[in-house]
Amino acid sequence: MTIKLGIVGYGNLGKAAAQNIQAADDLELVGIFTRRAPESVNCPYAKTYHVDDLNNFADKIDVLLLCGGSANDLMQQGPSFAGKFNTVDTFDTHAKIPVYFPKMNELATSGKKVSIISVGWDPGLFSINRVYADSILPDSTICAFWGPGVSQGHSNALRDIDGVADAVQFTIPFQEQIEKVSAGEKISTKAEDTHRRVCYVVLKDGADAESIKQQIVEMPNYFKGYQTEVNFISKAEFGEKYKGKLPHGGDVIGFGRGPNGEKLKIHYNLALDSNPCFTSCVVLAYARAAYRLAQEGQFGAKSVFDIPPSYLSKHSREELLGHYL
Amino acid sequence: MTIKLGIVGYGNLGKAAAQNIQAADDLELVGIFTRRAPESVNCPYAKTYHVDDLNNFADKIDVLLLCGGSANDLMQQGPSFAGKFNTVDTFDTHAKIPVYFPKMNELATSGKKVSIISVGWDPGLFSINRVYADSILPDSTICAFWGPGVSQGHSNALRDIDGVADAVQFTIPFQEQIEKVSAGEKISTKAEDTHRRVCYVVLKDGADAESIKQQIVEMPNYFKGYQTEVNFISKAEFGEKYKGKLPHGGDVIGFGRGPNGEKLKIHYNLALDSNPCFTSCVVLAYARAAYRLAQEGQFGAKSVFDIPPSYLSKHSREELLGHYL
Repeated sequence: MTIKLGIVGYGNLGKAAAQNIQAADDLELVGIFTRRAPESVNCPYAKTYHVDDLNNFADKIDVLLLCGGSANDLMQQGPSFAGKFNTVDTFDTHAKIPVYFPKMNELATSGKKVSIISVGWDPGLFSINRVYADSILPDSTICAFWGPGVSQGHSNALRDIDGVADAVQFTIPFQEQIEKVSAGEKISTKAEDTHRRVCYVVLKDGADAESIKQQIVEMPNYFKGYQTEVNFISKAEFGEKYKGKLPHGGDVIGFGRGPNGEKLKIHYNLALDSNPCFTSCVVLAYARAAYRLAQEGQFGAKSVFDIPPSYLSKHSREELLGHYL
Repeated sequence: MTIKLGIVGYGNLGKAAAQNIQAADDLELVGIFTRRAPESVNCPYAKTYHVDDLNNFADKIDVLLLCGGSANDLMQQGPSFAGKFNTVDTFDTHAKIPVYFPKMNELATSGKKVSIISVGWDPGLFSINRVYADSILPDSTICAFWGPGVSQGHSNALRDIDGVADAVQFTIPFQEQIEKVSAGEKISTKAEDTHRRVCYVVLKDGADAESIKQQIVEMPNYFKGYQTEVNFISKAEFGEKYKGKLPHGGDVIGFGRGPNGEKLKIHYNLALDSNPCFTSCVVLAYARAAYRLAQEGQFGAKSVFDIPPSYLSKHSREELLGHYL
């Protein structure tokens, strides 16, 4: 059995998804769908179409992977395809999920399709670990740490500054805060109290380093309030060390105490050479789940919380009971 | 809403479950059910009954927790209660699960009840992590390490030796093997190649230490083939350091490689002051799931693979989407 997939959007995530589909023996890539001129998108793994052509693919695609590059893309894309295709997306604006989910659910349910939203590692695997830890541990503190890794949003914010030729931003958790949570201490879990931000910036000729540094450390929402380190480096050093690399990862730590003060700790850690590569692997596992849910007629929007682990697996119930339980 | 629970068996696990039910605001302990004389069982949290009295509790208990002390207990207990009660058990003889599950499924289905089998951390949370890692990671190696922690089975085997007054056995994973898997190296995952065994033994007066040591290191299935360390200590030292303490934990490490050789690592770690305390917390989370599945008419036997994370949680869908995703 082969599951036929389409990809909407050919950025970092779409590219990684295409590569991983190529490597999987139960998945087939029907096409890449883009808002750009299709001939301008160079994908070695499948034909490229304009996104409007998806109207002709309703019966040719089992699951459509929405690989839009930003929360704004998905806020539009999700509802425009839900109910017409089974979809999986990586919608990651946590604050808007309570609005996005019911909208997707209404469309998917009435169209008799499945839409799995907010898949990846956070939201996604980290969310699952928060829920398991919260459901199991008594008297618990649960804390997520992101990084060390490249934040694409913060890197984009740096590159948008006048005078910046290229830039990357590493989010780095405070090791001592990880250790405190691991030891059962209650800490402030605000992101600026648990993480610092390290920037590597290549200046354009004639740009004023001091002024750019000030713009960075004072940028609201992104850097202001954070311990921020700004390093100016040469284009050559940037190319060698950082260009095209998107490592990431992080930790979810759940610490609980039993009725006699027993310390009970659950620690989930991801260390990823490539954020888009891993995220696309998670998307593909949930595409398998979307396909199965649709086959069973379990229509509507789903989050990772709604989906049993077995639905992600290629293995039969017998194999899972015999070799994985 | 309160879920009414009964406990069958009042060993380490049953005791810990009773304490944790006491501490939970959505759970109520109806009674302890034992094969012993009920008056000989001293539980401060609930009345104690003979196990045969369970016939009178069909409508008074929402979920029955089968806390039998060994695989043999549960092989009997499970089928004798499945279909009459919703049950949760910790059946942990991995090799017999493929026989146990269909038997429980047949009974639970025909009795219109839910039986969740093999709950705890391994089988249980470790199993879930094996399946998520296997479903997500391309080209993966997945390896479980147990310990450092007390193996109750191995400790019992030591105490059964003539001349041994008391004993405890720690299972300790080889740190260098953990590091090899974490670095993507393929290793032998046989338990004797990944773990060593450290014994603390109190001798009876006049017992022959050298002969007992030989019996230990040559004991088939338990110690033979393992790197085994035997330490003889005084009753006083044993009482102070080891008596009544059952710490455990371990790791599931999944290592994968993306299509361009990207290293992708998932590491799940548990560190538990008390194995029975934590295991009973997992049992209680799945008791909530059993209750909900039964309310919805989703009857039959289930493994942890069949149950969506949301079913374990006390929180509503809205709370989960808003605060945990």
